[in-house]
Amino acid sequence: MLEGLSNIVGQSNVLTGSAAQPYLVDWRGRYRGKAQAVVRPGNVEEVAAVVRYCVLNNVPVVTVGGNTGLCGGATPDDSGRAVVLSTARLNKIRSIDTDNDTITVEAGCILQSVQDAAREAGRLFPLSLAAEGSCTIGGNLATNAGGTQVLRYGNTRELTLGLEVVTAEGEIWNGLRGLRKDNTGYDLRDLFVGSEGTLGIITAATLKLYPLPVAQRTAMLAFASLEDSVTFLSRARQGFGAALTGFEVMAGSVLQAVVRLFTDQRIPFENESANSPWFALLELSDSESAEHAQARFEHVLGQAIEDGLLLDAAIAQSVAQSKAFWHLRESIPLAEAELGKSVKHDVSIPISQIAEFVAVTNKALQAEFPGVHNVVFGHLGDGNLHYNVAPGAGQTEGEILSLQSQIYQLVHDSVASFNGSISAEHGIGQLKVNELPRYKSELELKLMRQIKQALDPKGLLNPGKVVNV
Amino acid sequence: MLEGLSNIVGQSNVLTGSAAQPYLVDWRGRYRGKAQAVVRPGNVEEVAAVVRYCVLNNVPVVTVGGNTGLCGGATPDDSGRAVVLSTARLNKIRSIDTDNDTITVEAGCILQSVQDAAREAGRLFPLSLAAEGSCTIGGNLATNAGGTQVLRYGNTRELTLGLEVVTAEGEIWNGLRGLRKDNTGYDLRDLFVGSEGTLGIITAATLKLYPLPVAQRTAMLAFASLEDSVTFLSRARQGFGAALTGFEVMAGSVLQAVVRLFTDQRIPFENESANSPWFALLELSDSESAEHAQARFEHVLGQAIEDGLLLDAAIAQSVAQSKAFWHLRESIPLAEAELGKSVKHDVSIPISQIAEFVAVTNKALQAEFPGVHNVVFGHLGDGNLHYNVAPGAGQTEGEILSLQSQIYQLVHDSVASFNGSISAEHGIGQLKVNELPRYKSELELKLMRQIKQALDPKGLLNPGKVVNV
Repeated sequence: MLEGLSNIVGQSNVLTGSAAQPYLVDWRGRYRGKAQAVVRPGNVEEVAAVVRYCVLNNVPVVTVGGNTGLCGGATPDDSGRAVVLSTARLNKIRSIDTDNDTITVEAGCILQSVQDAAREAGRLFPLSLAAEGSCTIGGNLATNAGGTQVLRYGNTRELTLGLEVVTAEGEIWNGLRGLRKDNTGYDLRDLFVGSEGTLGIITAATLKLYPLPVAQRTAMLAFASLEDSVTFLSRARQGFGAALTGFEVMAGSVLQAVVRLFTDQRIPFENESANSPWFALLELSDSESAEHAQARFEHVLGQAIEDGLLLDAAIAQSVAQSKAFWHLRESIPLAEAELGKSVKHDVSIPISQIAEFVAVTNKALQAEFPGVHNVVFGHLGDGNLHYNVAPGAGQTEGEILSLQSQIYQLVHDSVASFNGSISAEHGIGQLKVNELPRYKSELELKLMRQIKQALDPKGLLNPGKVVNV
Repeated sequence: MLEGLSNIVGQSNVLTGSAAQPYLVDWRGRYRGKAQAVVRPGNVEEVAAVVRYCVLNNVPVVTVGGNTGLCGGATPDDSGRAVVLSTARLNKIRSIDTDNDTITVEAGCILQSVQDAAREAGRLFPLSLAAEGSCTIGGNLATNAGGTQVLRYGNTRELTLGLEVVTAEGEIWNGLRGLRKDNTGYDLRDLFVGSEGTLGIITAATLKLYPLPVAQRTAMLAFASLEDSVTFLSRARQGFGAALTGFEVMAGSVLQAVVRLFTDQRIPFENESANSPWFALLELSDSESAEHAQARFEHVLGQAIEDGLLLDAAIAQSVAQSKAFWHLRESIPLAEAELGKSVKHDVSIPISQIAEFVAVTNKALQAEFPGVHNVVFGHLGDGNLHYNVAPGAGQTEGEILSLQSQIYQLVHDSVASFNGSISAEHGIGQLKVNELPRYKSELELKLMRQIKQALDPKGLLNPGKVVNV
């Protein structure tokens, strides 16, 4: 195998032994696998040649980008049969077309470098998430990544116009179209997006660009209840229209934990509002001016305070303050990590039912596992909650983790009863592949298997992920 | 067959003879077919039972909604084997959730009734197209319809969150999720959207709603060239952001023909601007106030006039005037029809290359077919042109139509050379099914056939449409 692979990508791009190790474990250290080698092709033809060579030898191919996934989707199993294909060298920005508002990039480009290239051309590429400094756009595409701007711009899927894909047979599909409208047959693009490397290997994409906002305003909002924040969100959508680009909700207890732990941070209220049970971070992106953004902000927020819907609002008065607000939000996962392991869920619920979901699920958890601590935050604008369960007072990390599968089941069953999703933005990978049959209909799983069978009949692309065949 | 079908849907919902005739011809009278019967199931269970019964008897099923398609996608072939399945009785608005901003509707709902239901709930369902008074949302979904608001809200695909589908085996897939984020497996939804009834029968959908605009402003813009209109569009996207909801371009000669024919209409300029070579209809949807919309309008348009990019702008001063501007645009197809048949194309091109495409293609047409008249208009904001070729002075309709296949080929070859699409928003149907292999790669056609084979192995769903198997 190694010689054949070296002939394709060059010996220095076939890694084994310790050089291969970083590719065989996911970044959280939850999954470890083995592989014959890690190959780093330098262009799409080499990717295709690697796949053809692997098919010839009946060897599975596991594609990895920035290795920042949360579901083990890029880690091979421990059979040692697989070849891991790293997209690291597919890192060219191929072209930018500002009149067409598109950018064409290779799969191995770091998300931040795509954002930067767009910005240099005076445009916004709006996909934004915590791992943006190390995740690749190929991984974002493979998992249909979400992030903080979905409310306005959609998931990675909605930002994608065209793809270049290497198929399971090692053929190259050039679907790199920069068209807003194209109704010439089945939507192959969206089949590959979100398929986590199990139907084909995405090697490049043509993505949508947007105008850069002229001004942004950020506010921290204090609410008496989650219900109020949902009602306010609906008003904010009406009042701000498409200028509303972020709406992140956080339980008060979660923010309290952040500021207890990171003492250089603070909840930006002097008064008792700092002890509110719920907060939201609101971001407005204005296409006119800072003054206009400020005026709109004050109008909508002022009305909501007057109506008693909003307890209080702190409007960031500088870029530094705005960053500090976002930093609070971004510190939640760090604070969680400091506080010890928890059982994490990445769920979505129809927005109208989120408050009820949280109330019902909190109650069921307390009944079943008294004393556990709920860490609830997320992208309320998309109905996406990170609903995590941590040890309460007197409980240990070990106790919680020993209950992991029961907690998963309780929370996911509750999600299902609200017609929600057990994976809003992180994908299935290997983490949830055995959970899926509990929540998808037999029919949907059958359709998925039929498609897998049609496009990868030998089952060599990222086996054991997304759907069991 | 008839008795079996009557047992499922009731005798009065099995049409034959003259009652079936309207379903056997497309509205333009271009395609005529035959069928054993037309059935009108009243709910999804009946749809599923009809499909199962047809599968049992090896009978093709052709689904029809409002029968307003332009590519013959809903007309059966003339073998007389098929059963036509009308969605007319699947016409319930199942639910509206204003906090989740979603509406769930059955496939047979007329598009306008979906718009109306949303509006009554204080929301916007933005899909809008000429046939909205008679087309069904099921047909919009099956063809991924576009229309005039795509620039801001996307095609039907982007407006769709969930589907209910009857599969080729007559099973019911309940994928009616109202979630903005759901990454739990392959994107079946987008595979059915745009598949023109060849992979499954869409019976209901959960669709996105948006806030109603507080104010709208319309302007007719006069340009010296198509290039200038593209440059201005880019500025308008920057200046208006998401408030830019419409940008329709029209060749001056096309508008001149409209006002010559419909003498109650006029191009809204008193001066020589009325003779400009290009016009655009611009629509701004504001989330604040009429005054704000007006001020933004004047700012962006004023700057463009100052810079010489825009020759002139007529801003509608009343709803009636705004309607009159839109009426001009909407009268183009009617004027075309009055002037006799032409060879029509529904193409898209990267926006940055539209002006060159038109120049190159116009020139090639004149070289090959001297004297023909180009009727060019379309949704510039989406890169979508209706590029039609009509008889010039001294030419007859018959002469042009006798050249139809050569003209198609010249225009579509030109589209392909610009990496464009030969069907931007009308689909493939039977009109372009034999054109497709000239413009799609072998590989893409193979992937499409593999998917068709996987989901409809007997080939009974709308055979002869989209892709030949």
